[in-house]
This record gives sequence, structure tokens and C-alpha cells, in this order.
Amino acid sequence: SPVLKLAVIEGDGIGKEVVPQGLRALRAALEPIGVTVETTDFDLGAGRWHRTGETLTDEDMERLAEHDAILLGAVGDPEVPSGVLERGLLLKLRFGFDHYVNLRPTKLMPGVASPLKDPGDMDFLVVREGTEGPYVGNGGSMRTGTDLEVATEVSLNTAVGVERVVRYAFEQAEARRKKLTLVHKHNVLVHAGHLWRRIVEEVGAEHPDVAVDYAHVDAAMIYLATDPGRFDVIVTDNLFGDIVTDLAAAVGGGIGLAASGNLNPSGAYPSMFEPVHGSAPDIAGQNLADPTATVLSVALLLDHLGHVEPAAAVRAAVESDLAARTDSEELARRGTTQIGDALVAAISGR
Amino acid sequence: SPVLKLAVIEGDGIGKEVVPQGLRALRAALEPIGVTVETTDFDLGAGRWHRTGETLTDEDMERLAEHDAILLGAVGDPEVPSGVLERGLLLKLRFGFDHYVNLRPTKLMPGVASPLKDPGDMDFLVVREGTEGPYVGNGGSMRTGTDLEVATEVSLNTAVGVERVVRYAFEQAEARRKKLTLVHKHNVLVHAGHLWRRIVEEVGAEHPDVAVDYAHVDAAMIYLATDPGRFDVIVTDNLFGDIVTDLAAAVGGGIGLAASGNLNPSGAYPSMFEPVHGSAPDIAGQNLADPTATVLSVALLLDHLGHVEPAAAVRAAVESDLAARTDSEELARRGTTQIGDALVAAISGR
Ligand SMILES: CC(C)[C@H](C(=O)O)[C@@H](O)C(=O)O
Ligand SMILES: CC(C)[C@H](C(=O)O)[C@@H](O)C(=O)O
Repeated sequence: SPVLKLAVIEGDGIGKEVVPQGLRALRAALEPIGVTVETTDFDLGAGRWHRTGETLTDEDMERLAEHDAILLGAVGDPEVPSGVLERGLLLKLRFGFDHYVNLRPTKLMPGVASPLKDPGDMDFLVVREGTEGPYVGNGGSMRTGTDLEVATEVSLNTAVGVERVVRYAFEQAEARRKKLTLVHKHNVLVHAGHLWRRIVEEVGAEHPDVAVDYAHVDAAMIYLATDPGRFDVIVTDNLFGDIVTDLAAAVGGGIGLAASGNLNPSGAYPSMFEPVHGSAPDIAGQNLADPTATVLSVALLLDHLGHVEPAAAVRAAVESDLAARTDSEELARRGTTQIGDALVAAISGR
Repeated sequence: SPVLKLAVIEGDGIGKEVVPQGLRALRAALEPIGVTVETTDFDLGAGRWHRTGETLTDEDMERLAEHDAILLGAVGDPEVPSGVLERGLLLKLRFGFDHYVNLRPTKLMPGVASPLKDPGDMDFLVVREGTEGPYVGNGGSMRTGTDLEVATEVSLNTAVGVERVVRYAFEQAEARRKKLTLVHKHNVLVHAGHLWRRIVEEVGAEHPDVAVDYAHVDAAMIYLATDPGRFDVIVTDNLFGDIVTDLAAAVGGGIGLAASGNLNPSGAYPSMFEPVHGSAPDIAGQNLADPTATVLSVALLLDHLGHVEPAAAVRAAVESDLAARTDSEELARRGTTQIGDALVAAISGR
């Protein structure tokens, strides 16, 4: 029977609790179509770094590359200096495996509370570029630590890099409500901005049925807070995407529900799926974390591997579980494993 | 009698309507202390650019420099290419007059609706750096317009530039609720981020009574959408400040109320005050624009010039006018000049 070879990075904190529930959901969803899941655990994150000083070795990368996909929980703890795991692990994975599409859907599901008074119908997809922009790590400092320090950060953008992610975004828009919004700041960041604009225009000409819109990143903030229903597909650069998707998660029901996929659509490298939330050391180890964002990331994983029906089953299970929570204080008080139990039961049709 | 020499840039669209109301409010506020206002009109913006191709000449800069302050409405229209007036006029003013503090208060005033269900007590001040970061215009492109284009944007940050704005922010925090939050993204933009962190730590050591906090810009989005009351003073870089303040304006009652000051606290150059909104060509010329953001910018101008009581009178007038609007459909339907009338009457105590 067909086998899905999955690399598993539980990471730190609540990552260790939510990932097992994600795996249960994955197995339950694939069972009806006879696909079995073979997992390889990777010891990566703050724990390993504290013990060995390693973040992600070449050997890790080679072994990860042998898998069909990667599921990651969350990495980090307060004792690791800022940037060590971000640059040395998370971004190294995204850049090393050329995850040029960072996919982050926002859908306000029935029964889920938004902090907005009038959230309207919120159902949009942010396609964030994942391998360029201010995230490339091209910067430095001189006279560091002195009164004369100068520090730089360079945003690098290429036509090739922009075009491939813009193409992906247009394809998504074609399959959805046929609207695409470019978010940038081309009135100030004129060079990068004009490159993005030109590519969106050029690729847009091949998709005459997709309505193309533009918002400066600052204006996008206002729209997300007052009229998020206006968006269908948003395409944007790496840094703006980081900002836009956290606000999207907040207005869309909270970071506890936000899923993401770091995709290499060509299939040359395994794609990576992770909840947007962090390792939450304050609540770790207490069965308090909500595994829903991880389970929704599993749905993105299933979609990516072409298992569209299992993905739909996972989403349906999440939707009905979320709706049920609002009616019941008891359900709202469940812990990590209990939510996992309920989702697995719903996916299996039990 | 003492004279305030004010440079006035009405600009385009609703700029031409809101600025006259701002001037009336300014004169009414200064009347009781016997200060008269002498204005010089500057023809700058889309109109001038269409006629002459000029954005802001050296001669304009020299004449502007002879004034105590600048009041600007809004510039731009859809026919001006993106970036022309932003880089050539607005940013040229900010950089040329070394406006290193971009001050943007958010206070949810009684009677004003927020899009948030539970906005809480929202009263914070964003101190945005105004002369560095990704706004410096240090970028370019090669193989432009081809499939092999590479475009860059360079964020430049100096210890001198960061320190002066951080100092200003700590002084503001001392005079307020003694809390300062640095917003950055130091886990990814490590060089610029670590410079900002170091300076905040160093200056913070001189202000032991100010509690210092940190939020990544993405997390700041979540806080602004779910718990804006946590903030007192936010200090941040030019681009993050642009993004944070538009979201702040949105959750704080809308861009129609958001005021800003571009300050050169040394007094070497005139500071500039402007509403955060744009020229809104869709509603221009119809007496529909709300001049409140401009009038609140006048309050910042008065504060900056040391006229603390007139500034307070302007704010009190705005607060009572906003509160009155909620109770009366008639008041809510007023036009630009009618709101101006009401504010002037309130400031004059009539
Ligand atoms: C942890 C950090 C490097 C990361 C990012 O900035 O991309 C996170 O915020 C995210 O959005 O996945
Ligand atoms: C018009 C633009 C250059 C400007 C900025 O980005 O600073 C505006 O958005 C603002 O916030 O004042």
C-alpha cells in the first residue's frame, strides 16, 4: 500500500503536544484511501541547540530531503538568543528547500469569535513570498556596538522569484473567487515595488478573468481591520506577508487556528507545514494547547500531496468541532488530547 | 504682539478643504494668548506637478525653512505616478528638515466607534523614526524590465539616528504612563534589530522608572487587534511605524481622526503637521471631508511650539464635538465647514 514518508519536527514547548495530534488526524484522514504514514522524528529546536549548539546540519537537511513532506510544531524557548533558531533553523529550511510559496489561509469559521464587531464573510488566502525580500539575511553592521554604528538590511527581489510566486497566486485566484490583491509599498520602496507591480501586470494579462487590485501595506492594515471580506487572494513579499498574516490570523479567530504551508510547488524539495503560533513555553506541558492550527496545517499538507478528499475531511472535522465549542462550556474547556480525540473521531466518521 | 509664522501646504483634493478649517482652529486657539498667525501659502502637490513638473525645489525648501512650522493637508491624485510626490515632496520634506520624530497618537475618544468589539482603554503614542530605515531611498535595480531583473531596497540605520528618536520616546513615556514598547523584527532583521535593541537598553538604563517591553512587528499586529490598551509609548522604525500607525488609526476610530507631527525637536528646521489621511479625490470638493484629523494635527503643532493650553483647548473642543455626534444624526451629517464652525466655537468658548 502507498506510503507517505513524513519528516516530523515536534520542536519545543507546545510543539511536542500539538504535533502528535496532527499526526493522529493525518493517519485518520488517509486510512480510508489506504495510505499509511511512515514518520521520521527529527530532534531540532531549542532543546538540541542547548545540548549540542547545532541548529540544522547539512546531514539533517539531506535526511529531511528524503521525505515527502515535513510537519513542524514550533521551535524556541526564552533562553535561546533571538535569531539563532529563526535564521539557523526555520529560515534555513525555507530557503534551503526553496519554499517560495508561504501559504496562509484565513477563514472565519462558524462559531468562531473575531475581535472585530462586524467581521463579515472572511475567507481569503495570503500567498506570501518565502525566499526573498528583507528575509534573505543580506545585511550587516560596522562600528558595531559604538555610537557610530551603522546597520543595514537589504531586501533582494528578483523577477524570477517574484514571477513564480505571483503565478502561483493567480492560479489560486482562478480556483477561488477570481480576485487578487497585491500588497506592497511601491510609493516608497520604488524599485522592489515596481518590480512586483510589473510582474503582477504581466502575469495578470494571462488571467483576464481575475480582477487585480492593489493596496499599500499600510492601507491593507485598515482594510483587514474594517473590511476583511474584500480580500480573496493576497500576494505579497516576505516581510509584508509576515505582518499581514498575523493580523489576518488575529481578526480571523486567533493565532490558535492559523495554519501555514511552506511550499516548493515544483516538488524538488519537501514542503513544510506548521501552525503559525510559537512554542508558548508559558502553557507548555499542561495539555492546554489547542492542536487545531496543526490539524489545519495537516489539511494543507494533504492538499499539497494531492489528497484532496482527506484534506476536506480534516477541514470538515475542524469546522464542526469549532462550531460545537460555542454551544458547550464543557467542550470549550477541553485539553490538547481531548480536542485531538474529537477531531480523529470526526475524521473517521465515528 | 507675538507672531507665529506658518507655512501652509493645502495640497490636493480634500487637503484644500480641511486645511482652512485647521487654520481657523489654530487662530481661535491662539487668540486668547494674543498670538497672531501669519501664513504663507505654498503651491505644492499634484496640481503644481501637472503644471510645472516640479515637486519641491531648493527655493521652496529655503522659503519653507523661514517659518516656525508647516501645516500640510494632503497631496496626490490618481494621475501622478506612484512615488513621484511621496519621494519628491513628502519624504523630501521629512528628510530635508530632519524630521526624525514622526509622532502619531491614538486615543479612542468617548463616543467614537472602534471596529473592535472590545477596544478597552486605548491611549497610546507611536514614536516612529522619520529619517532612516527602508525609507532612505537607497535601492536600485539592474536588468530592469527583463526576466532577470534584480531590485534592492536597503534599510540604513545608525546609532545616532536610533538614539535620538529612542531618547525622545523615553521622554514621552516619562510624561505618560511610563511604559515603552520597542516594535521591530530582531529575530529576522538581526543587524538593524540588534542596533535598536541595544540603544533601547542603553537609554532605558537612564530611565529606570520606565518599564520596557518588546514586540515583534507581527505580534504587535495581534496586540493592536486584541488588546491595544496594553500600549503606552511605542517606538519603532520608519516602515514598521507606517504600518503600525495605520492599524492604530483604524482601531482607534478611523483614519479620519488620525493626526501626525513630523518633528525636528532641535528646532533647527520647522516641523510639519499633517493628518494621516490622503487627498481622497473621490470625495474632494463636496464639503464632505472631516477636518478633525487636521484640527488634531494643529493641537500637535501647538504643543510643539510650547502653547500647551491652546493645544488642550483644541483637543477638548474635538472631544466634545465627537461625543456630541453620537447623540445626533443631524450633527453626524455635517460637512467640512460646519464641523469647522462647531470646533471654532467650542475653542473660543462660545
Ligand atoms: C519565527 C519567524 C522567523 C517567522 C517569520 O517571520 O516568518 C514567523 O513569524 C512566521 O510568520 O512564520
Ligand atoms: C504617503 C507615504 C509616503 C506616507 C508614508 O509611508 O510615510 C504615508 O503613508 C504616511 O504614513 O504618512
